[in-house]
Amino acid sequence: MAGAQDEIEALIALMARLPGLGPRSARRAVLQLIRRRTQLMEPLARAMAHVAETAQDCPMCGNISLGGLCEICADPARATGEICVVEDVADLWAMERGHAFKGRYHVLGGLLSALDAVGPEELGIPRLIERVRTEATREVIVALNATVEGQTTAHYIAEALEESGTAVTGLAQGVPIGGELDYLDDGTIQAALRARHSL
Amino acid sequence: MAGAQDEIEALIALMARLPGLGPRSARRAVLQLIRRRTQLMEPLARAMAHVAETAQDCPMCGNISLGGLCEICADPARATGEICVVEDVADLWAMERGHAFKGRYHVLGGLLSALDAVGPEELGIPRLIERVRTEATREVIVALNATVEGQTTAHYIAEALEESGTAVTGLAQGVPIGGELDYLDDGTIQAALRARHSL
Repeated sequence: MAGAQDEIEALIALMARLPGLGPRSARRAVLQLIRRRTQLMEPLARAMAHVAETAQDCPMCGNISLGGLCEICADPARATGEICVVEDVADLWAMERGHAFKGRYHVLGGLLSALDAVGPEELGIPRLIERVRTEATREVIVALNATVEGQTTAHYIAEALEESGTAVTGLAQGVPIGGELDYLDDGTIQAALRARHSL
Repeated sequence: MAGAQDEIEALIALMARLPGLGPRSARRAVLQLIRRRTQLMEPLARAMAHVAETAQDCPMCGNISLGGLCEICADPARATGEICVVEDVADLWAMERGHAFKGRYHVLGGLLSALDAVGPEELGIPRLIERVRTEATREVIVALNATVEGQTTAHYIAEALEESGTAVTGLAQGVPIGGELDYLDDGTIQAALRARHSL
């Protein structure tokens, strides 16, 4: 049948646009998919089509939802007094993997950046302030990357929430669990030393 | 909506079964897909569903086809007098990228292996012998990996075709184009030296 190779090449080109897959590994992945079309390719196509059709941003927190509020916002067991601010859904997932936070989230979808013209409006910070007021939030935990943009955004949020009277906290910085001092960068060692505690 | 996270986790688990993607990169890939659902996820789901539904083995050569003969077997411009024997479709694609072979293929789908009980029948070698006879093939080029199993299979094919009178050839072994001697294994250097030619 004419065009078969073109269709397969088109599929490879789409796969190659995924992070972590280059043209070469996309080719291998497509071959693997075709070899295992019943067990892998068809279920994957179905799952993708379904999520593509139903996925949307949670109107409350910006997390991914498959319709209406996301699972976390819809869960009555999650504490309403704490909001954890994260940059994106990947960070929300990382927090959830830690199983340590039982409150709700606020997904910014980016960080403040004068260069890229990303201001507080784009990140939904006014909406966060509104949520803090209406949900009677006791604490906002700002869990942003320890980069310049992350820290700038964190400080902006802390200032914006100052008059609400809500506690604004950040994640502790220090030596990672299992981390070896010899492999840590200087900044982390300095931060860990500044924040030292008695044993 | 209940179960949203489960559905996304199921999609991540399917993606993680692709070669080149681990659990972590599958997670990143799925996030990227959800972020770009119109431009990437929907077209990818459609292309996958279509290929999964229509892909089959070419009844002539074993290449992937989307219905009936594959593009190469169906192409009247491809020479019928030459058959290139490859282990799998990935190798066929590699040969095609080289643009040097203008004949047709025979995809074995594996290599002879006493350990895995893969015999000539499983590899379609009787069918290859039949093709050589009916297509009046002048030359069979055995393009198999330079491994023990590849070379065992190549010799078996050469012997099986001996009485057909068809020439059976193999790819030359030597220094790759752009290859540096210092980085080559000893076997390649020995093969290149044995097959040296006058300049």
